[in-house]
Amino acid sequence: MISSRAVVKNAYISSTSRIYGRSIIENNAMIFDYVEIGFPTRDTLENFVRENISLRKDLIEYGEGAKVDQGVIIRSHTVIYEKVHIQENTRVGHNVLIRENTRIGKNSVIGTGTIIDGEVLIGDNVSIQSGVYIPPKIIIGNNVFIGPRAVFTNDRYPPSRRLIETVVEDNVVIGANSTIVAGIRIGRNSVVAAGAVVVRDVPENTVVAGVPARVIMYREEYDKKKSLYERESLSR
Amino acid sequence: MISSRAVVKNAYISSTSRIYGRSIIENNAMIFDYVEIGFPTRDTLENFVRENISLRKDLIEYGEGAKVDQGVIIRSHTVIYEKVHIQENTRVGHNVLIRENTRIGKNSVIGTGTIIDGEVLIGDNVSIQSGVYIPPKIIIGNNVFIGPRAVFTNDRYPPSRRLIETVVEDNVVIGANSTIVAGIRIGRNSVVAAGAVVVRDVPENTVVAGVPARVIMYREEYDKKKSLYERESLSR
Amino acid sequence: MISSRAVVKNAYISSTSRIYGRSIIENNAMIFDYVEIGFPTRDTLENFVRENISLRKDLIEYGEGAKVDQGVIIRSHTVIYEKVHIQENTRVGHNVLIRENTRIGKNSVIGTGTIIDGEVLIGDNVSIQSGVYIPPKIIIGNNVFIGPRAVFTNDRYPPSRRLIETVVEDNVVIGANSTIVAGIRIGRNSVVAAGAVVVRDVPENTVVAGVPARVIMYREEYDKKKSLYERESLSR
Repeated sequence: MISSRAVVKNAYISSTSRIYGRSIIENNAMIFDYVEIGFPTRDTLENFVRENISLRKDLIEYGEGAKVDQGVIIRSHTVIYEKVHIQENTRVGHNVLIRENTRIGKNSVIGTGTIIDGEVLIGDNVSIQSGVYIPPKIIIGNNVFIGPRAVFTNDRYPPSRRLIETVVEDNVVIGANSTIVAGIRIGRNSVVAAGAVVVRDVPENTVVAGVPARVIMYREEYDKKKSLYERESLSR
Repeated sequence: MISSRAVVKNAYISSTSRIYGRSIIENNAMIFDYVEIGFPTRDTLENFVRENISLRKDLIEYGEGAKVDQGVIIRSHTVIYEKVHIQENTRVGHNVLIRENTRIGKNSVIGTGTIIDGEVLIGDNVSIQSGVYIPPKIIIGNNVFIGPRAVFTNDRYPPSRRLIETVVEDNVVIGANSTIVAGIRIGRNSVVAAGAVVVRDVPENTVVAGVPARVIMYREEYDKKKSLYERESLSR
Repeated sequence: MISSRAVVKNAYISSTSRIYGRSIIENNAMIFDYVEIGFPTRDTLENFVRENISLRKDLIEYGEGAKVDQGVIIRSHTVIYEKVHIQENTRVGHNVLIRENTRIGKNSVIGTGTIIDGEVLIGDNVSIQSGVYIPPKIIIGNNVFIGPRAVFTNDRYPPSRRLIETVVEDNVVIGANSTIVAGIRIGRNSVVAAGAVVVRDVPENTVVAGVPARVIMYREEYDKKKSLYERESLSR
């Protein structure tokens, strides 16, 4: 079902999906089954309730919608709220949630089951693997890699009245199932190992690991090990 | 699709959702897209198979259904089994699973992607963030906060024939991506830090952290730090 | 919606589900709501785009499909790609993703929210709990138990050009929320404790725990403790 206020170019949209409000879907986008684009925020829901005493109307026409740029792929069961912008050629997995006031750059990948809980900025050429959790106030640069099930937080003493930013700078690598406590800066080119719990800032060009995470080497050494590791496969 | 045996008051129900069996949906509830309410347990499925040799009938009329109280919001892709009761004004995120014989109190929040695997009791004013896993035999009090991706278990030596209770008392805070091993009591007002692995009881009014988790301070100190942290934002 | 090229025996298939391409669904299989069977891989999508300038056609006829054997249960919101084979009596939870070139043996259980990201082999009588992440190149034997939210990886120095195998041998137990780094062999009958981060091979018949994981006892001792634990419940 597609809102009469939405603009849909030459894109594939599964008949099982729902395009809300004033969403815009550009050329060559593909939107698969059971997807919602432009799902209403709380304000829009409250308007709907106010205007419809019997609640028997369909919500599909409501809201500002989301903007899905050219060549974007959105796989099944994914939900994208209104006021989200997904830029060119970015691919979104199955069962992803992207809440309002979020922008995702070009040529990025958002893995299956990842939750981006609104008010998030993500750069270009970012690869977010499956099942990552990103709450509001997280800022992610360009060329960042985030491993599966990594978890960010935005409150140092939950549940408090103060949510704080975490910044992930360009070229950072974050390992699988790591936990990034709120209010941290992860410096350019640094690496967080799998399973680490990061409780303070990570300096540029370093590799941190453990609980709590500590610097174990420089990025230069990591890259050397990586080259050796990649070459091993050739020698087999 | 709505079972002819269900009772639906003045509620919003997306045309893409399925209300099974004898479910009851009270006034001002909102049930969004691709949701199932009252999904059948194994016993009900077996009845269905026994009664329908060709399996071409729709399952929608089967089962006891679930009870969704006034003002409850259930977001898209969520599945709620039969014999579940969700009390007034509780809000359930996207893609949540709540299995049978579970009761969730009033004014609580169940975050997106959370799995409540049946036989669970949850109190009032509880905030469960995204992606939490709660197996059978977990009991959660009132005013509890559970951070994203926290994982509970119910078997000390898996896979065994004995599942045991874990009790989370009132006013507890559990941090992101923590692991709570089976058979533990987390005492009133205590705090589990992000990333902790809790393997024994947590005394009341304490804060535990690390792998395995150990007491690092009292709740009083945590609350002082929290006040300072909240005030910091005002002084900026 | 069912592809005209699919073969469906006497099985229950929800009218809200989609069976793609040349899928085969055997007798007594049950496929619940909002499920996709045989979802197209990238190659198939590219064929579809090449053949359909306007993109207004439905994708349902495309692809090789998946094979779902007798007595298999697939719960709602689950997505199974083409070139997947699920063998007799295996039960798949809600909201599971199983990507291409994967085979899952008989009498196994795949828990809700688990992601099997393609190119994976899983044996018979395997129990994978909720929210587990399994990337390509993981091989899992028979009678394996994997606890909730366990995370496997396949790249030692991400993001690299080399993905490597991890092998989980028969009768292994892997605890909740553990992280298994790439390129590891977890030996027959061994146990990984909840919350462990495994960075090197685990010898047969041992139990490992901690970050990084170290041997803490033999399987024999674990099994003795397990027997005592199971007996405790009887004496109550």
